[in-house]
Amino acid sequence: MNQDRIAYVNGEFVLEKDAVISIRDRGFLQGYSVFDTTRTFGHKIFKLSEHLDRFYQSLKYARLSPQITKDQMAEITMELLNKNLELIDSDDDYWVTQRVSRGVSTSEGEVPTVILETVPLPFKSRANYYKNGMPVVVPSVRRTPPEVLSPRAKIQNYANLVQAEFEVTSINPEAWPILLDMNGNMSEGPGSNFFIIKNGKVITPKEQYVLAGISRSTTLELAAELGLETLEADIDLYDVYTADEAFVTSTSFCICPVLSVNGAIIGEGEIPAPITKRLLSAYSGLVGIDIEQQYLSRL
Amino acid sequence: MNQDRIAYVNGEFVLEKDAVISIRDRGFLQGYSVFDTTRTFGHKIFKLSEHLDRFYQSLKYARLSPQITKDQMAEITMELLNKNLELIDSDDDYWVTQRVSRGVSTSEGEVPTVILETVPLPFKSRANYYKNGMPVVVPSVRRTPPEVLSPRAKIQNYANLVQAEFEVTSINPEAWPILLDMNGNMSEGPGSNFFIIKNGKVITPKEQYVLAGISRSTTLELAAELGLETLEADIDLYDVYTADEAFVTSTSFCICPVLSVNGAIIGEGEIPAPITKRLLSAYSGLVGIDIEQQYLSRL
Amino acid sequence: MNQDRIAYVNGEFVLEKDAVISIRDRGFLQGYSVFDTTRTFGHKIFKLSEHLDRFYQSLKYARLSPQITKDQMAEITMELLNKNLELIDSDDDYWVTQRVSRGVSTSEGEVPTVILETVPLPFKSRANYYKNGMPVVVPSVRRTPPEVLSPRAKIQNYANLVQAEFEVTSINPEAWPILLDMNGNMSEGPGSNFFIIKNGKVITPKEQYVLAGISRSTTLELAAELGLETLEADIDLYDVYTADEAFVTSTSFCICPVLSVNGAIIGEGEIPAPITKRLLSAYSGLVGIDIEQQYLSRL
Amino acid sequence: MNQDRIAYVNGEFVLEKDAVISIRDRGFLQGYSVFDTTRTFGHKIFKLSEHLDRFYQSLKYARLSPQITKDQMAEITMELLNKNLELIDSDDDYWVTQRVSRGVSTSEGEVPTVILETVPLPFKSRANYYKNGMPVVVPSVRRTPPEVLSPRAKIQNYANLVQAEFEVTSINPEAWPILLDMNGNMSEGPGSNFFIIKNGKVITPKEQYVLAGISRSTTLELAAELGLETLEADIDLYDVYTADEAFVTSTSFCICPVLSVNGAIIGEGEIPAPITKRLLSAYSGLVGIDIEQQYLSRL
Amino acid sequence: MNQDRIAYVNGEFVLEKDAVISIRDRGFLQGYSVFDTTRTFGHKIFKLSEHLDRFYQSLKYARLSPQITKDQMAEITMELLNKNLELIDSDDDYWVTQRVSRGVSTSEGEVPTVILETVPLPFKSRANYYKNGMPVVVPSVRRTPPEVLSPRAKIQNYANLVQAEFEVTSINPEAWPILLDMNGNMSEGPGSNFFIIKNGKVITPKEQYVLAGISRSTTLELAAELGLETLEADIDLYDVYTADEAFVTSTSFCICPVLSVNGAIIGEGEIPAPITKRLLSAYSGLVGIDIEQQYLSRL
Amino acid sequence: MNQDRIAYVNGEFVLEKDAVISIRDRGFLQGYSVFDTTRTFGHKIFKLSEHLDRFYQSLKYARLSPQITKDQMAEITMELLNKNLELIDSDDDYWVTQRVSRGVSTSEGEVPTVILETVPLPFKSRANYYKNGMPVVVPSVRRTPPEVLSPRAKIQNYANLVQAEFEVTSINPEAWPILLDMNGNMSEGPGSNFFIIKNGKVITPKEQYVLAGISRSTTLELAAELGLETLEADIDLYDVYTADEAFVTSTSFCICPVLSVNGAIIGEGEIPAPITKRLLSAYSGLVGIDIEQQYLSRL
Repeated sequence: MNQDRIAYVNGEFVLEKDAVISIRDRGFLQGYSVFDTTRTFGHKIFKLSEHLDRFYQSLKYARLSPQITKDQMAEITMELLNKNLELIDSDDDYWVTQRVSRGVSTSEGEVPTVILETVPLPFKSRANYYKNGMPVVVPSVRRTPPEVLSPRAKIQNYANLVQAEFEVTSINPEAWPILLDMNGNMSEGPGSNFFIIKNGKVITPKEQYVLAGISRSTTLELAAELGLETLEADIDLYDVYTADEAFVTSTSFCICPVLSVNGAIIGEGEIPAPITKRLLSAYSGLVGIDIEQQYLSRL
Repeated sequence: MNQDRIAYVNGEFVLEKDAVISIRDRGFLQGYSVFDTTRTFGHKIFKLSEHLDRFYQSLKYARLSPQITKDQMAEITMELLNKNLELIDSDDDYWVTQRVSRGVSTSEGEVPTVILETVPLPFKSRANYYKNGMPVVVPSVRRTPPEVLSPRAKIQNYANLVQAEFEVTSINPEAWPILLDMNGNMSEGPGSNFFIIKNGKVITPKEQYVLAGISRSTTLELAAELGLETLEADIDLYDVYTADEAFVTSTSFCICPVLSVNGAIIGEGEIPAPITKRLLSAYSGLVGIDIEQQYLSRL
Repeated sequence: MNQDRIAYVNGEFVLEKDAVISIRDRGFLQGYSVFDTTRTFGHKIFKLSEHLDRFYQSLKYARLSPQITKDQMAEITMELLNKNLELIDSDDDYWVTQRVSRGVSTSEGEVPTVILETVPLPFKSRANYYKNGMPVVVPSVRRTPPEVLSPRAKIQNYANLVQAEFEVTSINPEAWPILLDMNGNMSEGPGSNFFIIKNGKVITPKEQYVLAGISRSTTLELAAELGLETLEADIDLYDVYTADEAFVTSTSFCICPVLSVNGAIIGEGEIPAPITKRLLSAYSGLVGIDIEQQYLSRL
Repeated sequence: MNQDRIAYVNGEFVLEKDAVISIRDRGFLQGYSVFDTTRTFGHKIFKLSEHLDRFYQSLKYARLSPQITKDQMAEITMELLNKNLELIDSDDDYWVTQRVSRGVSTSEGEVPTVILETVPLPFKSRANYYKNGMPVVVPSVRRTPPEVLSPRAKIQNYANLVQAEFEVTSINPEAWPILLDMNGNMSEGPGSNFFIIKNGKVITPKEQYVLAGISRSTTLELAAELGLETLEADIDLYDVYTADEAFVTSTSFCICPVLSVNGAIIGEGEIPAPITKRLLSAYSGLVGIDIEQQYLSRL
Repeated sequence: MNQDRIAYVNGEFVLEKDAVISIRDRGFLQGYSVFDTTRTFGHKIFKLSEHLDRFYQSLKYARLSPQITKDQMAEITMELLNKNLELIDSDDDYWVTQRVSRGVSTSEGEVPTVILETVPLPFKSRANYYKNGMPVVVPSVRRTPPEVLSPRAKIQNYANLVQAEFEVTSINPEAWPILLDMNGNMSEGPGSNFFIIKNGKVITPKEQYVLAGISRSTTLELAAELGLETLEADIDLYDVYTADEAFVTSTSFCICPVLSVNGAIIGEGEIPAPITKRLLSAYSGLVGIDIEQQYLSRL
Repeated sequence: MNQDRIAYVNGEFVLEKDAVISIRDRGFLQGYSVFDTTRTFGHKIFKLSEHLDRFYQSLKYARLSPQITKDQMAEITMELLNKNLELIDSDDDYWVTQRVSRGVSTSEGEVPTVILETVPLPFKSRANYYKNGMPVVVPSVRRTPPEVLSPRAKIQNYANLVQAEFEVTSINPEAWPILLDMNGNMSEGPGSNFFIIKNGKVITPKEQYVLAGISRSTTLELAAELGLETLEADIDLYDVYTADEAFVTSTSFCICPVLSVNGAIIGEGEIPAPITKRLLSAYSGLVGIDIEQQYLSRL
């Protein structure tokens, strides 16, 4: 961790190495902290407004108030980012995160903790996925159902996803988990959405069982602009095994080609497959960066 | 919060007000932190060994290693407790907690964060439950199922339970949530187990859908010693509404009488009801403190 | 109960106080009775034909034959209503109900019991909901699933809904229950449908798990006429807590604004919220009565 | 229906033909009525006290108060029975039923309706089952789950069971439905419990998904007295098809031999099979009547 | 079985009576064999290409490779059919089946078994369904869910469907089973899809829980051409009992009118009902054969 | 495959290379074939009678009659085995299988196919599991539920298990799948049962969701004889990850030590762990062969 980076904690900009929270913070004690993360492309922030809209919806679901407005949150975000951008190379980029936890309970009640921070994107460690495709594995662990806790609110209760990650990576360190929901349909992986392409249609799980990723909606919009039919639908393993292409989206990945699911090669195994390539290229056009190249250049 | 109290953080004893973790700690970022809590009775710690056994089982499930042995953990616990006991009155007591989080990810991997701390028990704010009985409300939110994340491992993903709490307390601030499991049977509340008594039998939900509370097992042992039949079983609302008595157990409560469930008075509404009273009295005998009186004296 | 009102029982018009059924009627012994209810607005009956269509579908599902035609049923309905309208003030209105039970089993088989009756609408006792908004609470009890008994047939097996009502009103007497279906999605309350509005879309649960209310379809039609997008969809608690507005529809309520769900204020808490207000106003236009005013005038 | 029989309605003994309830009674409008039924053997009432205990448990679950004590209920029961016994032959017997409905809602609240009545047992129409065995058919309709409405409370919401009955009898008029619960295990039929015998063990579904029949518990007690192992367990179709014997219990049947389930002959198809015969004989001994003969004599 | 017919087995055309597989073939040992079946109309094969497309999708799901291309498979199919057509009358027709099993495991691995064969269509034994309508019965057995094994891949694991068949035909030999899926919606029967018509809409279960029959898609296309609205949707028993018409599709039946479901007459009980008749007539037009007449002429 | 071995097919002993079935056999067309398999130890057959009892139960569930008695089946088994024993070395052993398929449908009905055969046990290819322990992986595919097809009847519909096998072995060729049942509890793998040992208790999944393996019951008996507590219970992943030991039983394995589940080492990772070792040793004593050594000697 670069100790020179700055973070914002409860009204103050501090060196990240000094950015701490009390051991009594309920974001720590209960995992009761809501967050959202966007990234920069060529040092420019991506869809901050959409991310903050989603952030404030998550907060509402979690019955937390950040006690600052969306506009203030945007301003602090930009101020923080500007402080940190000079610390990285021009071909590097940042994740940019806002986080509000339940804070520390005192006799006067609870005061939320507000944290903003940045992390350089891990291009190198994930570059291989763009070269060889991602081996997706469906773990036995199922994604938390909405009647327990909605996966649509970005709350820091990630143990379900971490267990899924342990399950697949302890067998194959490269494996990326995509979990089934309680009904047996594909849902999502850690901070990532799943797509298949079949007969030219671009299909992704319905929003109810997954976080409505901004990269997911960006991809759906780009697909529509390319004249492709898009669909939010129940996707089961038959759909996956007989799909022509598959990919994963996330803030960092944008669109990452999938090689196989549970060891079964998707389509012909081309990386990236034709439509995935067109979408990735459209995404690069939108953000003004060759996304694939940004990853592959680190190999 | 008493700022003079001492906490243990990663090998050092520090003032609690200085006890902090990095904002990059995965216990905060993912709620991926395992803990266990016992308490003192008359300043003597209760079943530390049983609690640590359970703690290390939770850690194994979570695939975390604290990197110190159970014996070392016990020693640090006692050392910390001794430092803090002098700060409270003789009729006060402490919760004593061990906590291991996934720590901060660095290029060298992850080093777990180990925290031990104490909190004075909130006798006053809960005393009313011993006088009038606890109004239990069953929320619509269901308890996380084992195929998602086992409720038997004490992992700090409490958003499910916090949502349940918001749901019932925003209607009645006194209400205590006990959630149904995914099969529609009573499971548990935040840090607390549920019991009914029917025809002299002491019945509590099976372990699979709930944390196996130490107070729960202590109560089952005491019941057996009193010659009462005990049972771990599926309990549905018919069982609850036709029960003779009901109570909640937890480290702090020990045994807390329940007045009503969803507004339906349990049995004749006596607080505490006869067998609950015998169990509470046996519990007081075991720990050498009049538990009920410790609460009621603060009214 | 006004004892001067007239009811129709098996071919005869009788004083309501004399309107009785045998204790051996299977409508009583098994709750095996099918019904439908419309109401008057300014003493004019509303969508009688639509209600009778639904009524005869319920009868078909229940494998009961009323042994009179839909036209005859309409005629008797109007005749009965006319007899009773003179008993109420001009600003009062009636519920008008047709009911067919399985009747008494005799050695010759079963002869259905046919009953028609009217009840003055309870404007006063419900007026407060229009002033302050309805506090909806989601009980732990789930709505009967179609593989057990279809909620789409209006059969008098209301114990499921009555239990839900007891559950929420014993905690808050003003609370209105909306039950989850077995999949964890919002379904319906006693004789009432649930709607949310989000980003200008008017959304209500799919028909499969709820009675297809005539007020529900009237509202969907009015929304479409106002140029609003409408949707029948799975609605979970995330949708509800992040909705902009919510309301309940029923024959008596037409459209009743919702203040909160499980204590969480919906949108900004305005009563009625803007789109709800437009819909309510369009409903009033359709029926020729200021619906809101009819309720509020009794306060 | 014998019009000379007497019934008890809300404090008065009346001719059954005059025994009526208001069309506004919620026992009729909502099926919200709780009941229990025992029978006579040789004109002597059977386990009245056990039936009334269960009755008052059902009432408690239903949140209804009959406003008379269990002792008063017993007295009225005996008084009514005595009035009616003289109306039947010495070899006939009665069902004896207590029923409490939610009554009529008035401005002062609700006053429960209390009804007691008797019906001669239908020996003739069911005699064939004792000669040829009962053809059980498992319908597609599933038994109401406890999270919707507990099947353990004898509430008059029988539409689920009536639908099951229609489903099987419209294909085979002799068929008796035993429904699966939501988990796919055998539960119960209309007013009747199901048993299998395998390797000498007497097995019946667990209480949670079925009414805890008094004939069911009597059979379990008799089996134990005969030295047979008894078990309450999940029973699926594999258990049924590979069972040695099967039978159905109910207040009227006591123990009725089953010939087949879904057309598959149980065991060797002997009617009654050996252990069923021993149990039936023990039951006859207990009640002082040859049960089988009482039925068969009507053929 | 006509012993003169020819079959294709692993590269050779042999007399059907000599067409055998090893007892070690995994198609036999595990039921692990994938197949597809089309038929002829007036000796001309129907939609071979669509059937082979589906066949190769099933193979992909099953992770089996036939080791011959789709074109080769088509050629062998036509060659085989030509050899066999001369063996039947001009008004008879064939089922034509391709089948690939996992084959025999040897030390060198597994070599798939490839079989093609023909069977004359059973017009006579099924003719009655076209005259009187098919009595559909919904068994208690549920259709295999996708998370266990996708019903969309035509794999020869038919025990689930065979059990369903035994269940209904042992009660009524004419009954045709249509199973519910695990969610309680209508799915499919052995090799057959189910449709209802309501208010002029042609509705069939969604593809996820059923095989996507070619006759099913042909029917949907014909309906669209006739200007009828079509819908793939969840269909429960309420939909079925209140439907105007119902029918079953399959390769042999094309469109077979349904008289009743669980003994409840569908619509007015006309065979065929009006829209079914129009669809059947359009189907006949498409294939150049009077389908109904082909069946009825054998009575 | 040794082509000199003899098999029994429908009344005749034939060379295995000539042992064939018609391509019209429903055991092939529908996977509708029931079987059972025992093995020899030192050329002596193991618990033939118990296996045949289970076999005839499976047949009864499947509604198939082999048309020969259990005694005849035993005689043929022994005769076949004797013919084949001379073909293998003294330290080799056989699987011995009886199989009855639904046979070929003819105009006269169906005549079951009866096959008996032997296969040498694959000691070499599985020896490694005894040295290093078996890496168990829980696939995403769930075990067929009883309401679809009972896993307790040994029917040759193995596609569910084969899919599970493909899923785990395509990621790790050594991995052995143990599937979860639909409730999320451990059930079974292909022809194999799963056990854990915790606090000295020997625990295996309940019979309802798994085949009641003879090796499973043998192990339970041996454990009881060794004074160990045994339990059939729901086992979830928390139980597994916190278990002290785990092993898999099957006819061939007897007791095979498990190293890890989903990559998490069980207990201390000792192979075999202490209690597993005692059980394996007792099993060896029972069968008169050092089971572990029989495997390890091939390495």
